[in-house]
Amino acid sequence: MIGLTNYAGVMESLMNSAEEKQPSSPLTNSWAKKQESSKSQKPNGVGGFVLVHAGAGYHSESKAKEYKHVCKRACQRAVDQLKAGALAVEAVAAALVELEDSPFTNAGMGSNLNLSGEIECDASIMDGKSLHFGAVGALSGIRNPVMVANRLLSEAQKGKLSAGRIPPCFLVGRGAHDWAVSHGIPPCPSDKMATKFSLSAYKRNKRKMELAEKMDTGHNQTKKRRQSSENENGSGCLDTVGAVVVDLEGNVAAAVSSGGLAMKHPGRVGQAAHYGCGCWAENACNMNSYSTAVSTSGCGEHLIRTMLARECSAAMQSEDAHQALLEAMQNKFISSPFLASEDRVLGGVIVLRCCRCVEAQPSQNFQGILVEFLWSHTTESMCVGYMSAQDSKAKLYGQDSTKGALVKCVTQREGRSKTKATSK
Amino acid sequence: MIGLTNYAGVMESLMNSAEEKQPSSPLTNSWAKKQESSKSQKPNGVGGFVLVHAGAGYHSESKAKEYKHVCKRACQRAVDQLKAGALAVEAVAAALVELEDSPFTNAGMGSNLNLSGEIECDASIMDGKSLHFGAVGALSGIRNPVMVANRLLSEAQKGKLSAGRIPPCFLVGRGAHDWAVSHGIPPCPSDKMATKFSLSAYKRNKRKMELAEKMDTGHNQTKKRRQSSENENGSGCLDTVGAVVVDLEGNVAAAVSSGGLAMKHPGRVGQAAHYGCGCWAENACNMNSYSTAVSTSGCGEHLIRTMLARECSAAMQSEDAHQALLEAMQNKFISSPFLASEDRVLGGVIVLRCCRCVEAQPSQNFQGILVEFLWSHTTESMCVGYMSAQDSKAKLYGQDSTKGALVKCVTQREGRSKTKATSK
Repeated sequence: MIGLTNYAGVMESLMNSAEEKQPSSPLTNSWAKKQESSKSQKPNGVGGFVLVHAGAGYHSESKAKEYKHVCKRACQRAVDQLKAGALAVEAVAAALVELEDSPFTNAGMGSNLNLSGEIECDASIMDGKSLHFGAVGALSGIRNPVMVANRLLSEAQKGKLSAGRIPPCFLVGRGAHDWAVSHGIPPCPSDKMATKFSLSAYKRNKRKMELAEKMDTGHNQTKKRRQSSENENGSGCLDTVGAVVVDLEGNVAAAVSSGGLAMKHPGRVGQAAHYGCGCWAENACNMNSYSTAVSTSGCGEHLIRTMLARECSAAMQSEDAHQALLEAMQNKFISSPFLASEDRVLGGVIVLRCCRCVEAQPSQNFQGILVEFLWSHTTESMCVGYMSAQDSKAKLYGQDSTKGALVKCVTQREGRSKTKATSK
Repeated sequence: MIGLTNYAGVMESLMNSAEEKQPSSPLTNSWAKKQESSKSQKPNGVGGFVLVHAGAGYHSESKAKEYKHVCKRACQRAVDQLKAGALAVEAVAAALVELEDSPFTNAGMGSNLNLSGEIECDASIMDGKSLHFGAVGALSGIRNPVMVANRLLSEAQKGKLSAGRIPPCFLVGRGAHDWAVSHGIPPCPSDKMATKFSLSAYKRNKRKMELAEKMDTGHNQTKKRRQSSENENGSGCLDTVGAVVVDLEGNVAAAVSSGGLAMKHPGRVGQAAHYGCGCWAENACNMNSYSTAVSTSGCGEHLIRTMLARECSAAMQSEDAHQALLEAMQNKFISSPFLASEDRVLGGVIVLRCCRCVEAQPSQNFQGILVEFLWSHTTESMCVGYMSAQDSKAKLYGQDSTKGALVKCVTQREGRSKTKATSK
């Protein structure tokens, strides 16, 4: 029996004014602001919300500061887009580009190297308005994999190709690279994407592997494989990045990008490229009262086999988002029958949900959008940032250079709770 | 508004005796046989059931005879395995190898060629007992892609790799090829996998594309793209193959394999490699009364975006399997909001569900397994075969050289119905 800690993140209800900031009006057990967006008037460049993550994992303290910086910049990039009138899907892509460009995150620049010492990236994006999806897997030589995923999404929205061919939503490997270049996305030499840090981590992991394989040689190899300690698995580098956004019109979008597990086999594709597993976004419709957007991080195989993004999105149709996310993480992930054979289940999610708000100012020209956001992870830490279009700067949570900052956030006022859950 | 025809397939309840054939005992509106399997005694090489498909599409009559033959052989291969005491997952892989080896199906040997004239295959397999999954995408130069998917599944079941690395469940492209070869699966030169038929189809499609692109040149290209006729889209070659199996112990497994859409972009991965989309298998558990297995065929992008295999599997927990499948095909596929922008939704599924049967002989040593199987497709035809371990040969349905054979099967006695459903 192995104990796993499941944190449920901050849950806030935000309503930001498109015209002017409204006085704070706290809802039960939550921290609330007002947002009203103009439907008939052209928005004045305000409104919308972004939540980003720089991965669930076991981050070194030295990296924490950089994670904070990049989360901050990613929030700002998305908010700049929203202020310029961009849709959620464009804003989420902009946030991801910033996260990928950081040499410290395991996405785009500075990604983990695979067994052969190469960088192969996965990324996907989903638009809650059109419900279109674009993904790339095992993609080398492109600085911003999310841009290729986004381009696949937008090309598919244009309809069929010549001779009635159906446009692809998922491309991998060399084919994905060539498609990107033929669509004007510049190639980037692979050696320019590796960093000092990723190269030294590769050498360290390689030595560790060789040592472990030497120890494994002999009898009962299978038994030894099973007994390998989870602390050895390079899980310090699970730091996939992602973001979820709601725009002024209430459209949601989600995206995720990852260099994958360190020392993965070439060609291995993780959850970041997998429909329903890496990200999910779905605007409210007849069937669903809430628009939801989810982005995941962690061990790709665990997130694939539990389809965690889609499961969390579906759970968000329950009234109590906070409770629903805790239950989803417990029942659909930590205690999932799909992961019954796993000794440790590694993952995290960021979640955003919103709905038209009945408490909104009843003016004909205004409609309120209630935004709630949450996160949860089974890993030691998860670096998260968020920002509304009215904030002057992003707020940040997660591992900090001042150890214990994560715990400090767990307060009643912010609707945040910390629960212990044990599986198996 | 476009009319789509949705056929629901034969629904049978089978119970086959492990020791001796029981007299036929029809259930309400179904055609029933008895199966009782020994739990405490070693099975005498009898028991189990297989259902295979050679794809949903628009098959030429000249191909129909070959499809019948290969479905027959695939059923026989799976039954031979079951009789030898194999588990469902081994039997389903054996059926797939036979389907892939046929030069007429769009899987393995004789697969559709992509834009560059190469063969790139997708395949996946799922074991309902362990809930493990293995998949390959855009794989070239391997005769039987399903064998690689199966090997990924069985390797993952062995636990972690050296240094605690998590084994992959999904490999693509060159990396998948190299992994397969390093695990003893022999490479096969790509030119040996192409056939006269696939090469001539490629040339024909290439000409068609060039002509269409010439016509598209000029103003308003986007509009023209949208208007491309669905009849031009090479959808005659949707014939992905797949199978679902239940073994003597009641374990289920499912698999699917595909060469993908004709003239697809290199690196494009379809539903056959996508978790939840190409196949699904889940043994009964506390939450689910029925064990279910599903394999899909059709346009990969449509099947990915609707996660059709998993949706159909979930629907099978309803009491009336027949009605549940019709509703799932209508609500989760034909009228799915995820495909709202598509002018034609192309797909088919084969479904198997089973449960411990309360009507079984109450002897301590015997437990009955009730097996129901169904299929449904929105395409013109779907070639299907099935066989229980006690049958001397497989039964076949689908397009036949005697046109109209498909309609002939639609009778009350066999619980088969034909419904017209319109979407949008």
